[in-house]
Amino acid sequence: MTDALSPAIEAVVARAAAAAPAVAAVEPVVRARALVAVADALEADRDRLVGIAMRETGLTEARLNGEVARTAVQLRLFADTVAEGAHLDARIDPADDAFALGARPDIRRVHVPLGPVINFAASNFPFAFSVMGGDSAAIIAAGCPLIVKAHPGHPELSDATAEVAADALSAAGMPDGTFQLIHGREEGVAVLRDPRIAAGAFTGSIPAGRFLADIAASRPSPIPFFGELGSVNPVFVTAAAVAERADALAAGFLASVSGSAGQLCTKPGVVFIPEGSALPDAVRAAADGSAEHRLLNPGIARAFEERRDAALAVNGIRPVVDGALRFDSEGQGWALPTVLAIPLQAFRAARETLTEEVFGPFSILVEVPEDTDLAALVPEFFEGNLSGTVHLGAEEADGGTANAADLRALVEALARQVGRVLFDGWPTGVAVTPAQQHGGPWPATTNDSSTSVGTAAISRFLRPVAFQNAPAALLPLPLRDDNPLGVPQAVSPTGASQHWGSLARG
Amino acid sequence: MTDALSPAIEAVVARAAAAAPAVAAVEPVVRARALVAVADALEADRDRLVGIAMRETGLTEARLNGEVARTAVQLRLFADTVAEGAHLDARIDPADDAFALGARPDIRRVHVPLGPVINFAASNFPFAFSVMGGDSAAIIAAGCPLIVKAHPGHPELSDATAEVAADALSAAGMPDGTFQLIHGREEGVAVLRDPRIAAGAFTGSIPAGRFLADIAASRPSPIPFFGELGSVNPVFVTAAAVAERADALAAGFLASVSGSAGQLCTKPGVVFIPEGSALPDAVRAAADGSAEHRLLNPGIARAFEERRDAALAVNGIRPVVDGALRFDSEGQGWALPTVLAIPLQAFRAARETLTEEVFGPFSILVEVPEDTDLAALVPEFFEGNLSGTVHLGAEEADGGTANAADLRALVEALARQVGRVLFDGWPTGVAVTPAQQHGGPWPATTNDSSTSVGTAAISRFLRPVAFQNAPAALLPLPLRDDNPLGVPQAVSPTGASQHWGSLARG
Repeated sequence: MTDALSPAIEAVVARAAAAAPAVAAVEPVVRARALVAVADALEADRDRLVGIAMRETGLTEARLNGEVARTAVQLRLFADTVAEGAHLDARIDPADDAFALGARPDIRRVHVPLGPVINFAASNFPFAFSVMGGDSAAIIAAGCPLIVKAHPGHPELSDATAEVAADALSAAGMPDGTFQLIHGREEGVAVLRDPRIAAGAFTGSIPAGRFLADIAASRPSPIPFFGELGSVNPVFVTAAAVAERADALAAGFLASVSGSAGQLCTKPGVVFIPEGSALPDAVRAAADGSAEHRLLNPGIARAFEERRDAALAVNGIRPVVDGALRFDSEGQGWALPTVLAIPLQAFRAARETLTEEVFGPFSILVEVPEDTDLAALVPEFFEGNLSGTVHLGAEEADGGTANAADLRALVEALARQVGRVLFDGWPTGVAVTPAQQHGGPWPATTNDSSTSVGTAAISRFLRPVAFQNAPAALLPLPLRDDNPLGVPQAVSPTGASQHWGSLARG
Repeated sequence: MTDALSPAIEAVVARAAAAAPAVAAVEPVVRARALVAVADALEADRDRLVGIAMRETGLTEARLNGEVARTAVQLRLFADTVAEGAHLDARIDPADDAFALGARPDIRRVHVPLGPVINFAASNFPFAFSVMGGDSAAIIAAGCPLIVKAHPGHPELSDATAEVAADALSAAGMPDGTFQLIHGREEGVAVLRDPRIAAGAFTGSIPAGRFLADIAASRPSPIPFFGELGSVNPVFVTAAAVAERADALAAGFLASVSGSAGQLCTKPGVVFIPEGSALPDAVRAAADGSAEHRLLNPGIARAFEERRDAALAVNGIRPVVDGALRFDSEGQGWALPTVLAIPLQAFRAARETLTEEVFGPFSILVEVPEDTDLAALVPEFFEGNLSGTVHLGAEEADGGTANAADLRALVEALARQVGRVLFDGWPTGVAVTPAQQHGGPWPATTNDSSTSVGTAAISRFLRPVAFQNAPAALLPLPLRDDNPLGVPQAVSPTGASQHWGSLARG
């Protein structure tokens, strides 16, 4: 059973629940314009918001300005998604007397909003995965009332963003209760447990995500919970790639490890390199002059220190880039990037310590003997991951080298365990596009049926409903023959044109 | 942690896990032809299989012959789905230097199989939701190794079906380990707990479904679990509908309640009718000469007896069709349909007893005063349901009557809580088509993101993977520019043609 909510939280949940039918009924074009209005309002207020964010998170102005731009683009992309209507997956099976199992009725199917959703904001993207970040955009785009649980790392920014967004949504005609912000861990948990809440979204650590996912799954009425959690993001670099471009690889690697002080879920945490290659030296050289960066908060800094110290104590490991961590008088941690190297056998012996995510500017180069079966390393060392990366030589990419079958096996092994397989790049910087996939099997996510970045993310907050023999006047607009919203409709063939296995027979 | 498996079950799981890459790699056309081969083989052996099924389940020959036909069509529909390739949702975002956030890489996304899946077969559809039923067809179509846990209600039929299917799959070129059958509740649970298993499917009762869903969610690595559970399937009949066609409504209702001895998850369990209408009398008249049918097994018969007795004891309830239940010398239950009637206020007082599913030939007519807010009854009495039905008068269907807004509100209320909204029909008999939705919020299902009937069901056993800047030689075939499989590919616009909110701006 649910615990009694505090009066303030009860009011929030009641308001969201009461708003659900109205939010779902908002015309798509109005919902889309409301998302664009939020994007415009955030950009108009960027200087003030970024100033608060710098103070609360220690992230740089350039990074935060870029993040506001990304957040605005996300909102606009979801606006286009809503206006276009492909996410509704409208399907029409006309009545058919010649159906293989006897006459079939008219059946039409469309996606509808789930209802009120709580989104637990992340610490490391105070705009793009926070109050009006990608999950929030997807939830509102889907037509669900949104309750955001603010991350305690940037409370003032959360309030300021919420005010900007609420004003923009209201002025754009969205119903009262479309969006609300709450603070507090217990308050967030209480909302997630409430029977009026239809789904949860989350970006953060594996333990916190598991804690919330278990609550969602064990409710008297279980609900979907979309958590994007931790990841090590293994990288494989071939000897040919190192021979062709060691310096470029080293520079790209260091930028990916140290950008945003390594506090990105797609940071490359373990890189398999050829034994005896020039890459460690190139990385050491590239690290000269690295700047110190503040970590997001003292808790993250202390966890970073603990994990880094544990790695440094492993048998056979050696520093390539020494790195450093110091705490200032306010308890904030400041870090220089740390890169360690270790032979494969020693890595294997210390796998429990070294295959856990280290959140911060830290990575490990694992030196692999020449005849190692790279594909076998993937399931040996990793569970689900957000990404897996392969750096190839030019001829290897063309598929004509002697190791082509091994490389294909490696790619296939990665595709079985990660959400995104990259070639000749670095996994940080997740493009917001229709084909993006930011997910992966547990523990990369709590639910791998969709993505948390890219426009496909809207599907998480929708469910299908079919209408059988509905009179036109009672059909949802996307399913009507006259298609007043102009959405894509998939109409099934009837009668003699249906094939029932004929495609397969060939 | 997982318990140790028995050697036999360990061998089954190991074989499925080892087969996963090979099954995933089977060319779509080969996988499709294998499904057609299973359909052909089941139909070729129909007489023998139906004979076993009649003995084990008590269902009639006509019903079982129809079920084999349905099962074969399901398999062929999934074959066409696989051959066509739309379920892969192939998306291509070409590299774009003019992207709103700076140059973006080439990103391509496709759906890939989850890996080994266990499917817990149902009792009430010994073909269509059992060993080679819809879930099994969807799992193999998706490219996942399949382990079926047989239902104990028809063990001999399960073995016979499995033998036919395994031979057909093998002859069609599917890899060793594509399909295996196991028996035993504990064995099924042990497989579901095994870390090598990637998902579960189930059709059955709410308690059994919840038990298994909780196991899937609480594993060290949680997995998706698609259970299709119980449903009351509320029906609303307007005064105009009764006035126009009471006898036809009564006949259709009784056929839907008593077909397959009422042992269907879409049986209409509660029907709201106008107070004082002619429908109860018409139902009583239509029930004359109803035939007695055997229930599936003694356990179902005893549960039916208990629920029926509890309903009969409710204050204010009265029999419209008396019905009966007797046990034969082998302990099998034989039933005649029971229909009860009760005023809305008395139904409200006994809601806990009367809103639970009664599995068998049983239904309740709830007599509703004229000015009742029908839409409000839906959330008052029901959680998620597989279906909700509305019977309208001819003018009501045209939307021009004085109660048009009330009827629209009723339909919207149903759409918020059910998977399928029907008009002027009965919910039993779920057509297998692309637009079908057989699902609904908890407790209709454990996961309402997809369907358990219709070709959209394949998506439950797939997950998305993106490839970034992949060389053509290392891309999955559905994502290649030359599209050798001829699957639908959605290619995003680039450069100046992209709109970023312009659709929403209008």
